[in-house]
Amino acid sequence: MSSSGDIEALIEMMARLPGLGPRSARRAVLQMIRKKELMLIPLADLMHHVGASVRDCVECGNIGSSTICDICANEKRATGEICVVEDVADLWALERSGVFRGRYHVLGGTLSALDAVGPDELRIPKLIQRVQDEAVSEVILALNATVDGQTTAHYIADQLEGRVRLTSLAQGVPIGGELDYLDDGTITAALRARKDL
Amino acid sequence: MSSSGDIEALIEMMARLPGLGPRSARRAVLQMIRKKELMLIPLADLMHHVGASVRDCVECGNIGSSTICDICANEKRATGEICVVEDVADLWALERSGVFRGRYHVLGGTLSALDAVGPDELRIPKLIQRVQDEAVSEVILALNATVDGQTTAHYIADQLEGRVRLTSLAQGVPIGGELDYLDDGTITAALRARKDL
Ligand SMILES: [Zn+2]
Ligand SMILES: [Zn+2]
Repeated sequence: MSSSGDIEALIEMMARLPGLGPRSARRAVLQMIRKKELMLIPLADLMHHVGASVRDCVECGNIGSSTICDICANEKRATGEICVVEDVADLWALERSGVFRGRYHVLGGTLSALDAVGPDELRIPKLIQRVQDEAVSEVILALNATVDGQTTAHYIADQLEGRVRLTSLAQGVPIGGELDYLDDGTITAALRARKDL
Repeated sequence: MSSSGDIEALIEMMARLPGLGPRSARRAVLQMIRKKELMLIPLADLMHHVGASVRDCVECGNIGSSTICDICANEKRATGEICVVEDVADLWALERSGVFRGRYHVLGGTLSALDAVGPDELRIPKLIQRVQDEAVSEVILALNATVDGQTTAHYIADQLEGRVRLTSLAQGVPIGGELDYLDDGTITAALRARKDL
């Protein structure tokens, strides 16, 4: 390669991001360099800013710039409904659909025997605590329709059985489907048609 | 969106990069945030570093971290051959093939009546000056096989006719093909089989 060492290092690091390969990383870096004042510098500034301010919400596990995320801090969202998702990408997908007005609980993954992920590696104890401490009327298990997702949903349902209304997304989530890949309409339909467990 | 303003701004800016859309930008940003110390911060540092150091080589138009790029500064590459390319991505593609050991001249685009790009908007005067001033034995016109690329090649050939050996990439470059999308083998074959104009 003829580009200087730093440019190469930048391309290599960009190429490790999901959705980018070596070719698109090269094109992205060239584009950023061509638009240095409009892209490269502002992007670097934003990244530093986000890096310095981003944190996990102590309540729900969402990411934001304060100890309590915008959703947990918003009293209008104290509807008594908690929607349990695997990760922040799923929370974003649900927020884009705009149909859910309650709060979330981000597990940070799924139970997995293979990867030795148990309940304590996820935010499951915190979820149980929230159901005890907050005025929670319903827990919506919006986990992916994968084996690990459904195993995790069943485990949580067992833990919370009899304490709160438990529902799960119903219509529209295809077998093996992941929330983050669904269109907003499908997510809206699935949430509207949620069923009791 | 539930992400804080800075995170959203970062996603929007990433989504403007070539090869990334809103979905892949969201996934990339989440991944960077999850691996903050390994990805987000080092990437921001590298971008700042590149932003502060990157410049165009005054000789050939390649990008690097000094006034004269690594290739122009390398005496071993003073072979008398200059390979003329449209942009830095094409230079990188040729360098990856490893077959060309001379120097480059990056035009910074192609002549285009539609976009009102004339010879002076490109580095064509500088190319003519290099052919006059340096010991140049051959100019290889490695322009894309597009209408504008070939128009530009003919214009340069007219300007340099009789002063230097002029060649162009031959075999292997498909009609309408762009160098940056070709595999290394095709580029190597095209360069080896280059023909006189
Ligand atoms: Zn929260
Ligand atoms: Zn140079």
